Amino acid sequence: MNRIRTATVLTHRRPDETAEAIGLLLGLARQSGVVLRLDLEETRKHGLEPGPGLELDAEVRLDVDICFAMGGDGTILSALRIYAGTSVPVFAINFGQIGFLATIDREEITDGLTRGFAGDFEVLALPGIEVTGAGKGRWLAVNDASMHRQPGKRVADLMYSVGPDEVGRVRCDGLVVATPAGSTGYNLANGGPVMAWGVEGYVVSFIAPHSLTARALVVSPHDTLRVNNCSLEEPVDVTVDGRPVCLLAAGEEIEVRFARGQSHLAQLPGTSFYKRLREKFGRLASP
Amino acid sequence: MNRIRTATVLTHRRPDETAEAIGLLLGLARQSGVVLRLDLEETRKHGLEPGPGLELDAEVRLDVDICFAMGGDGTILSALRIYAGTSVPVFAINFGQIGFLATIDREEITDGLTRGFAGDFEVLALPGIEVTGAGKGRWLAVNDASMHRQPGKRVADLMYSVGPDEVGRVRCDGLVVATPAGSTGYNLANGGPVMAWGVEGYVVSFIAPHSLTARALVVSPHDTLRVNNCSLEEPVDVTVDGRPVCLLAAGEEIEVRFARGQSHLAQLPGTSFYKRLREKFGRLASP
Amino acid sequence: MNRIRTATVLTHRRPDETAEAIGLLLGLARQSGVVLRLDLEETRKHGLEPGPGLELDAEVRLDVDICFAMGGDGTILSALRIYAGTSVPVFAINFGQIGFLATIDREEITDGLTRGFAGDFEVLALPGIEVTGAGKGRWLAVNDASMHRQPGKRVADLMYSVGPDEVGRVRCDGLVVATPAGSTGYNLANGGPVMAWGVEGYVVSFIAPHSLTARALVVSPHDTLRVNNCSLEEPVDVTVDGRPVCLLAAGEEIEVRFARGQSHLAQLPGTSFYKRLREKFGRLASP
Amino acid sequence: MNRIRTATVLTHRRPDETAEAIGLLLGLARQSGVVLRLDLEETRKHGLEPGPGLELDAEVRLDVDICFAMGGDGTILSALRIYAGTSVPVFAINFGQIGFLATIDREEITDGLTRGFAGDFEVLALPGIEVTGAGKGRWLAVNDASMHRQPGKRVADLMYSVGPDEVGRVRCDGLVVATPAGSTGYNLANGGPVMAWGVEGYVVSFIAPHSLTARALVVSPHDTLRVNNCSLEEPVDVTVDGRPVCLLAAGEEIEVRFARGQSHLAQLPGTSFYKRLREKFGRLASP
Repeated sequence: MNRIRTATVLTHRRPDETAEAIGLLLGLARQSGVVLRLDLEETRKHGLEPGPGLELDAEVRLDVDICFAMGGDGTILSALRIYAGTSVPVFAINFGQIGFLATIDREEITDGLTRGFAGDFEVLALPGIEVTGAGKGRWLAVNDASMHRQPGKRVADLMYSVGPDEVGRVRCDGLVVATPAGSTGYNLANGGPVMAWGVEGYVVSFIAPHSLTARALVVSPHDTLRVNNCSLEEPVDVTVDGRPVCLLAAGEEIEVRFARGQSHLAQLPGTSFYKRLREKFGRLASP
Repeated sequence: MNRIRTATVLTHRRPDETAEAIGLLLGLARQSGVVLRLDLEETRKHGLEPGPGLELDAEVRLDVDICFAMGGDGTILSALRIYAGTSVPVFAINFGQIGFLATIDREEITDGLTRGFAGDFEVLALPGIEVTGAGKGRWLAVNDASMHRQPGKRVADLMYSVGPDEVGRVRCDGLVVATPAGSTGYNLANGGPVMAWGVEGYVVSFIAPHSLTARALVVSPHDTLRVNNCSLEEPVDVTVDGRPVCLLAAGEEIEVRFARGQSHLAQLPGTSFYKRLREKFGRLASP
Repeated sequence: MNRIRTATVLTHRRPDETAEAIGLLLGLARQSGVVLRLDLEETRKHGLEPGPGLELDAEVRLDVDICFAMGGDGTILSALRIYAGTSVPVFAINFGQIGFLATIDREEITDGLTRGFAGDFEVLALPGIEVTGAGKGRWLAVNDASMHRQPGKRVADLMYSVGPDEVGRVRCDGLVVATPAGSTGYNLANGGPVMAWGVEGYVVSFIAPHSLTARALVVSPHDTLRVNNCSLEEPVDVTVDGRPVCLLAAGEEIEVRFARGQSHLAQLPGTSFYKRLREKFGRLASP
Repeated sequence: MNRIRTATVLTHRRPDETAEAIGLLLGLARQSGVVLRLDLEETRKHGLEPGPGLELDAEVRLDVDICFAMGGDGTILSALRIYAGTSVPVFAINFGQIGFLATIDREEITDGLTRGFAGDFEVLALPGIEVTGAGKGRWLAVNDASMHRQPGKRVADLMYSVGPDEVGRVRCDGLVVATPAGSTGYNLANGGPVMAWGVEGYVVSFIAPHSLTARALVVSPHDTLRVNNCSLEEPVDVTVDGRPVCLLAAGEEIEVRFARGQSHLAQLPGTSFYKRLREKFGRLASP
């Protein structure tokens, strides 16, 4: 059991879809004596007025007991990213199409939130991948990091190595490095494998590879992957969890490492990755 | 036999690689009484001086008897595009890595050019695909047309239809429509099939499709394909033979049609698509 | 309009599922003055008694005006095979899961059969592929021909050539050659492309290829494919439309040719391949 | 360093290819005071005569210090299987085409064997997968276990579950479960990912899946996979490391578990999985 006293609330950008859920959340918080914290944007989006157990226009704080995220995989990912590196669990309610990362679906919200406020859930620690680029910075990906050629430019020419060993050089639109949690997203779109959430390792796949021998590679968690932009002229874009973070000029490289236990996802007992996989895949299949 | 009197010469952007070949070409042209036409850029690139049988700083003319193209697939494609819609054959000498479209490899250049000037070759007519966008223009692709999401934006949401029938809707990085000649390029990188050059039809494949049911589709040459940008907000880039041609705003669509006999490629007797496939695929396989 | 006087009836092996439809068929036949012909097996399966407009325990005749097939793709395929090479249209009612080849679904049966007896339908001619094996025989495939290694034996080692040119040599579990109509079956399971029914050509794909460069190839309808069993010792099984037809010993080869207009499928106006594709693919996607 | 006193010798079935290597092995053994043990088949195959440091016509013993295996991946696999569950390292010399599992290539044999006899090598522990079938037995796979439909029979209908959760049901030719070491074999032929040797987990891929949503799945090493033959009638063959082990009747199921540290492969310092991957993939790519 987890003792819950303060909670951050994050919602996606269509407040009319989550209005009823916000009402429910406020009621349950009051009953449970939990203080809800909503930042400036959330406060305005939902037109909230001051009241007991509400901290409005609040700064994001990392010492809350839980974060409720209502939205699709994008919103849930944002919540996981904010609390990455802390032990704050993200309790996610799916308001999107797939909701692979969601704790509960919106149909289960009353029961689900009641359990959430009671601390009656399990916490699953998810690994991330750490990306560092020569002097450019350091980023943590919860789902994936990717590199892309720029539009209208030649195909990217990427060499990838693990430890001291070059593995291959691929002309392609780009490359995706995914965590197990991210494996069902961009990686899967490239023909990469689904990785169950307990697997230790991360996976590299290629976007539109011109090399016929380029195959998805599951890298050991102990090994560092380096990707070098071998183009003579053209930079590639580097993206972390779908957001651009830097350019990699011709000849530059990034390093990618596995990082254990970065994010924490609330899970109801009885759910499992495999069950989730079965349910969500039906939704990915619609024509 | 084809009677050759005038020829256009096009080369790629590294003139030192083609210098010897240009010398050979000039000599053979003089012997054969053929007038070579080189435009301003080619004239300067090779430092050519006026002489008999040479038209320098020349405008591109469509009534020549042949076009010699020296370079990789990009240069050959440019030549095919310039002479698309005419009956001028492109005689291509491979100075690139793969050279799928090349008439001869550089090792065969002396014999090859001698045959070229003598008109001793076959001509293979290649289909193109015609792309028209609502009020935006009309373009002919020799290899392929593609649509891409913009960098840092959400995945593209594309609906494709053939004739009156919607076939599918796919969230993806983009979509490629290729001719048989283009099928071994970007289409193959997406897992699309190789199409032999005599096949009547064109092929649609998807770049990083999130829909698990998206599969490459060979469309009948009699049918028109329409692709609609179903995104609520974001435009997609439209590219023809690798060059950006227009933006397709949310809700807009393009039409794609098969167009018979648009380009003409010189072929030495005894070559065939299948032989070429075998030779070139080895080069695509290098790690 | 097609004038209908005699009809063959074929059904799948679960007569209770088609009992109601058989009743409807008999009624409509009597009303329309059409003679129904059912062979010994069909007669017994449905417990039919002699009556006006019924030829029971009948030999299969190729000079009927139509063949009604009720079942899944297997039954429809059998009907198309029986009447391949004739102009008898197969009017197929889907009692299976996918029914890619069906004229109508079972929900549309009353309207559909009424149109069928009235001859109010279009006829779509489908190409086949002809398989000949060194001295072993000649077979026509409506959907596909395949070659497989034998269970517990080493992987097959197959060389494939088109015309005089070897294209590749692949170590694999087997190889599938499919018509456009067959492209959505076994070929698709191997990652081969969907081919619209108007496309002229046939497609080769590989079952579990160990060669990284093996890719699906759409062959021109003018070209003959040869597949050679390059194994030093082990035979491979040859299968046509899912039925074993012969063994190919080490060193032997088969030839495959495109054969236009072999089968004839009844189609209701307004249906199209692409519409069908959209409807049926949803059924292939269920987890 | 590993102290070497007794060694088993295993070679593939073409003794003329390994004759010179056997001569070298005998010489080095004599110099190093190591006793070589060869079984009846090996003794006859190489025409060996009794001599010092040779135990001919020997029973296989599991308490030797090393096993020298000369051959392709099949021979090396046999050696690993014989010594699975013990700590005896297999020192493998590649006489086959790919030799993914080999310690050294044949060109390095003199240096390599000298190091082998001196015990100057590292030992890499490889996981296996344990297969158990309802009352049928228990088998250990070093590379992979697979299930196949029988030739000429309908496609297999397999349901797979992990722990208590059904993941999917797939109509297919079969299914492959591979260890990391086996991932570059049959699994890769099915489009499964390459798994680096340090990755903890095992991978399921499908042979010619008719379900469009079937994707390769990397299972957590803590989870048990069950595969059920859902066919109403037809059995499927179960194969372990390429050898048939049992039939699974309609309705029956097998269980698969990850088993740590089952086999031990000798490795020269400086080699790595990724280096090996790069070298061997070139050989898999040849047309």
